[in-house]
Amino acid sequence: MKIGLIGLGRMGGNIARRLMKNGHEVVAFDRSEEAVQKLAADGAIAASSLDDMRGKLDTPAIWWVMLPAGGPTEDTIATIADKASDGDIIIDGGNSFYKDDVRRAKTLAEKGIHYVDVGTSGGVWGLERGYCMMIGGDKETVDLLDPIFETLAPGMGDIVRTSGRIAEQVDPRAEKGYIHAGPPGAGHFVKMVHNGIEYGLMQAYAEGFDILKGKASENLPEDERFDLNMTDIAEVWRRGSVISSWLLDLTAIGLAKDEKLEQFTGSVADSGEGQWTIDAAMEEKVPANVLTAALYARYRSRVDHTFGDKLLSAMRFGFGGHVEIPQ
Amino acid sequence: MKIGLIGLGRMGGNIARRLMKNGHEVVAFDRSEEAVQKLAADGAIAASSLDDMRGKLDTPAIWWVMLPAGGPTEDTIATIADKASDGDIIIDGGNSFYKDDVRRAKTLAEKGIHYVDVGTSGGVWGLERGYCMMIGGDKETVDLLDPIFETLAPGMGDIVRTSGRIAEQVDPRAEKGYIHAGPPGAGHFVKMVHNGIEYGLMQAYAEGFDILKGKASENLPEDERFDLNMTDIAEVWRRGSVISSWLLDLTAIGLAKDEKLEQFTGSVADSGEGQWTIDAAMEEKVPANVLTAALYARYRSRVDHTFGDKLLSAMRFGFGGHVEIPQ
Amino acid sequence: MKIGLIGLGRMGGNIARRLMKNGHEVVAFDRSEEAVQKLAADGAIAASSLDDMRGKLDTPAIWWVMLPAGGPTEDTIATIADKASDGDIIIDGGNSFYKDDVRRAKTLAEKGIHYVDVGTSGGVWGLERGYCMMIGGDKETVDLLDPIFETLAPGMGDIVRTSGRIAEQVDPRAEKGYIHAGPPGAGHFVKMVHNGIEYGLMQAYAEGFDILKGKASENLPEDERFDLNMTDIAEVWRRGSVISSWLLDLTAIGLAKDEKLEQFTGSVADSGEGQWTIDAAMEEKVPANVLTAALYARYRSRVDHTFGDKLLSAMRFGFGGHVEIPQ
Amino acid sequence: MKIGLIGLGRMGGNIARRLMKNGHEVVAFDRSEEAVQKLAADGAIAASSLDDMRGKLDTPAIWWVMLPAGGPTEDTIATIADKASDGDIIIDGGNSFYKDDVRRAKTLAEKGIHYVDVGTSGGVWGLERGYCMMIGGDKETVDLLDPIFETLAPGMGDIVRTSGRIAEQVDPRAEKGYIHAGPPGAGHFVKMVHNGIEYGLMQAYAEGFDILKGKASENLPEDERFDLNMTDIAEVWRRGSVISSWLLDLTAIGLAKDEKLEQFTGSVADSGEGQWTIDAAMEEKVPANVLTAALYARYRSRVDHTFGDKLLSAMRFGFGGHVEIPQ
Repeated sequence: MKIGLIGLGRMGGNIARRLMKNGHEVVAFDRSEEAVQKLAADGAIAASSLDDMRGKLDTPAIWWVMLPAGGPTEDTIATIADKASDGDIIIDGGNSFYKDDVRRAKTLAEKGIHYVDVGTSGGVWGLERGYCMMIGGDKETVDLLDPIFETLAPGMGDIVRTSGRIAEQVDPRAEKGYIHAGPPGAGHFVKMVHNGIEYGLMQAYAEGFDILKGKASENLPEDERFDLNMTDIAEVWRRGSVISSWLLDLTAIGLAKDEKLEQFTGSVADSGEGQWTIDAAMEEKVPANVLTAALYARYRSRVDHTFGDKLLSAMRFGFGGHVEIPQ
Repeated sequence: MKIGLIGLGRMGGNIARRLMKNGHEVVAFDRSEEAVQKLAADGAIAASSLDDMRGKLDTPAIWWVMLPAGGPTEDTIATIADKASDGDIIIDGGNSFYKDDVRRAKTLAEKGIHYVDVGTSGGVWGLERGYCMMIGGDKETVDLLDPIFETLAPGMGDIVRTSGRIAEQVDPRAEKGYIHAGPPGAGHFVKMVHNGIEYGLMQAYAEGFDILKGKASENLPEDERFDLNMTDIAEVWRRGSVISSWLLDLTAIGLAKDEKLEQFTGSVADSGEGQWTIDAAMEEKVPANVLTAALYARYRSRVDHTFGDKLLSAMRFGFGGHVEIPQ
Repeated sequence: MKIGLIGLGRMGGNIARRLMKNGHEVVAFDRSEEAVQKLAADGAIAASSLDDMRGKLDTPAIWWVMLPAGGPTEDTIATIADKASDGDIIIDGGNSFYKDDVRRAKTLAEKGIHYVDVGTSGGVWGLERGYCMMIGGDKETVDLLDPIFETLAPGMGDIVRTSGRIAEQVDPRAEKGYIHAGPPGAGHFVKMVHNGIEYGLMQAYAEGFDILKGKASENLPEDERFDLNMTDIAEVWRRGSVISSWLLDLTAIGLAKDEKLEQFTGSVADSGEGQWTIDAAMEEKVPANVLTAALYARYRSRVDHTFGDKLLSAMRFGFGGHVEIPQ
Repeated sequence: MKIGLIGLGRMGGNIARRLMKNGHEVVAFDRSEEAVQKLAADGAIAASSLDDMRGKLDTPAIWWVMLPAGGPTEDTIATIADKASDGDIIIDGGNSFYKDDVRRAKTLAEKGIHYVDVGTSGGVWGLERGYCMMIGGDKETVDLLDPIFETLAPGMGDIVRTSGRIAEQVDPRAEKGYIHAGPPGAGHFVKMVHNGIEYGLMQAYAEGFDILKGKASENLPEDERFDLNMTDIAEVWRRGSVISSWLLDLTAIGLAKDEKLEQFTGSVADSGEGQWTIDAAMEEKVPANVLTAALYARYRSRVDHTFGDKLLSAMRFGFGGHVEIPQ
């Protein structure tokens, strides 16, 4: 198929390459002309503007937007909508908030434009491993785009098949690494929860290794201390243990390189998805203590002391007469 | 009554004074001779050693130990036990772990010695306001000591009576500020949970004020910022709001003195009771998310970055290719 | 002053009565004619409609809306806005979301109408104790309304003054039980955080009493059980302890009436403020583990089993071969 | 090597079989004679008692105890200690508390007996996949037992090697699925933290799927609902996503079998390790919000309503005048 790809950053560029490598045509645009030329050198059709892209796409045109969520994506989709024709398809492959998808799909449908949201996991490893994709949109459009998704997905590979799947009851695409999750917004919603879970998993490992590390603390009685090897523990858990995972694989790589992780300060960023997941939990009245605590641990990692900490000290001073003397 | 008081620190000294002011006799000992002389100047009978104290007490003797929990209390009670006679009473008024009480009471009972544990709340305000006491021990002994407890307790004062209390079903002492909670250990157990709750209450205020404070953050859109006055908010909540409390009174005092709390670093200590409360919750299989989170906030306040935080960064580097770029 | 009061439910009715008792005039409207007549019998000027109210108010008119947050408040304010004149004041005394206040104030300002939001704490006790009020709005308008707020507030009463308040640096109204918190929205924002804290405080007590109660559990070794008296413990903590508070007073009343709390099922509702507080925390990137856990405990109290619980069992079955055998 | 295996339950039996299949000799004992005969039929040397076993083992004898933690393990090790000779080795392959290991090792060392603790992960899958083992003990003894551990471990298999491991700095055994973690107790300590992490990981998935499931809730506005397919989502995440893991594989199997998980009630057991992990965190003063929340979710899953929930209702009744009307 022929796809117009807008946004040639790390993710966009790799997606283009994986598409082209498998026989699709890519018309490429980025506000950085250099990025466009670089991809053209790899076989893409260069577009100098969205108007130029319009002329180089088929009818109906397929526009894949791969830009940072928020302003850049919002503005670009609005601009494309002005240039698009009835029947065109706009795909948002970034990390948009799913309620934005719902709204956009409604607005675009009035103009006869189809909207598809694709949540993508796999990070920088996607070019090689393929992208795990969660897709929202109307059935007809998602089916039409199937050749693209099949190309981008990892495929069955040598991952063991899940026992008990009954062909009649399941989406066969899931085994290849992509699903049609539901109407517009459903793709990014599932991806959002995926990231919420990711935060929880990461924090579970982080706390566990903290406890392993802390076991060497001089505050413990001498005969209750162990000086454990983080690198080997991460490695051994990869092999036959109940907690093996891809995140543990990455942990093992990180620790093998530097067991003390000294290149990192420990200030941990969070993207919007963690917060949105908690918003969704609250809207649904679902208790989500683990996912929330994981998010808060990141907030906390970015400040030295909270005002609240000082308030605790002020109270302790108030009833105990002294900051250091516990009540 | 005549009481031997061992440990004349802030708490012990004030307890002695409140007892003497109300007609009790106090035989006082501390390893600091100066502390003994100071209290003797206020009317106490000075003791130069535990043996000396033994000779100056009545039969049966009442020994009130007011020392730091752990080693000092444990050793002193063992020493007294050697000197004590059948029928004597040993009171631990410190912050001992309740399981130590259970053990000690059993051992001392074999020697005919009664053991009473008194959990005391009120901090440095106790001399003036009276001490809220939770008492563990056998009924006969606790009843015998009633004159002491009644003296130390705040009494009914002008605190509004709780509607609905039915005289036949309740302990009349509760309204005066002390209760016989149960057998040995029960006093410190109730006091321990009291402190666990205290941590939770304090953290609830701390987080709330953090959110008030954070509303002025420059990371928020300009028209969603409020520059709120912490001092006045604490004050207004003291007056008719649902969240008025003594801890809020202390908060208001602290903020009135310095709204920015700049004298505090925000490294918050914890005594054993918070941790023991969580231990008890786990033994009972009671979920205690709030009390635990309050305890952990204090742990977290005392470190710059955890090893776990760095591990999160290492994982993010692993899948995202870059520390700063969220997946 | 003359105030138009729309919404004569429990809160609205009591506010009207407290105003009238202190010399203000109230023009009263409610969609229930009976409620209007009842208040008229107590001295209010009955209004049969908002138009009728318009005619009975002074210029500028003061409209106090006391309705459930969301639709009812939103619609009523919109209707009043149509009837109001330049210089009129609309007060929202309900529990609106503060961002709605910000938006409304902006819209109404374009029509020359002043908007004031009043967060009110005190529940059903307000008629007697007075209302603790947190007010948002422009300074001039809030100052103009001062006689109303002073009447509704509890006043200084016999609550001990906070030591260290420096007259020049603080809002003198705070000691009387009300503050001008900031621009429109600030009143409800502070009230929202107040409720967030309230959830945290309540849950801290709830968990503490759970641990006290659980200490009688037959799952514990027999010599580690205590059969504690909840009623007396709540009572004694009211008297001199660090955790005394108004919520504890209510707890003591509840337990005095029925120590087993058998009239309650334990399904606990939550209003919007708890959730909004967490939203605010996340927008500000402030960790709020305690307030969030308190909110989630309420969600959890309203379901028998979560789907997540079943998923845990499914996983345990997967690796352990049996639901009941721990790995 | 020749090993005496005491305890022929699921784990013990499978371990024996894996050892024998790879050339080791197993002398087998269990208090169930049937279990002994069954294993003898598979090639083991039957022992009718520990004394009998003693006679059938080499010198020094290797005793592998595979019994439930607590009493059974404790008593059996004490009995073996009486029969063992200087230089013998006792291995505890169960789930003992690591502090028990430290104590036992000390006591046994006085008798010249070596003690080794082996934490084992892999559940019922171990016979086929091999066991991931974390081993505590003195170096000489652990080295001596290496043939046994190598046999039981999964070996390198086709799991991708971790990039960056530097042979000189790491334990080569880790890549084969076992490590010598440290002195006695270190094996079970690492295994304990492993289980703590496991709880956190499981709860992260559980909460995520709860949020996915809840998105179909009728309490949400109709156009914000998605009716998502749990089975396909679990499947697609196995393929190229950041959150792929063995626990997710099990989740996918469980959901493929029954998407509604109706065979499960959702009452989730916990073994001791989760609780011990939190104890360790508190001893080290390490905040572990996620691991603790995961443990508490299990406690909460096993009760209908907590006393604390009822207390919340009682307070709400107190200030709001009504259980159902939020303040």
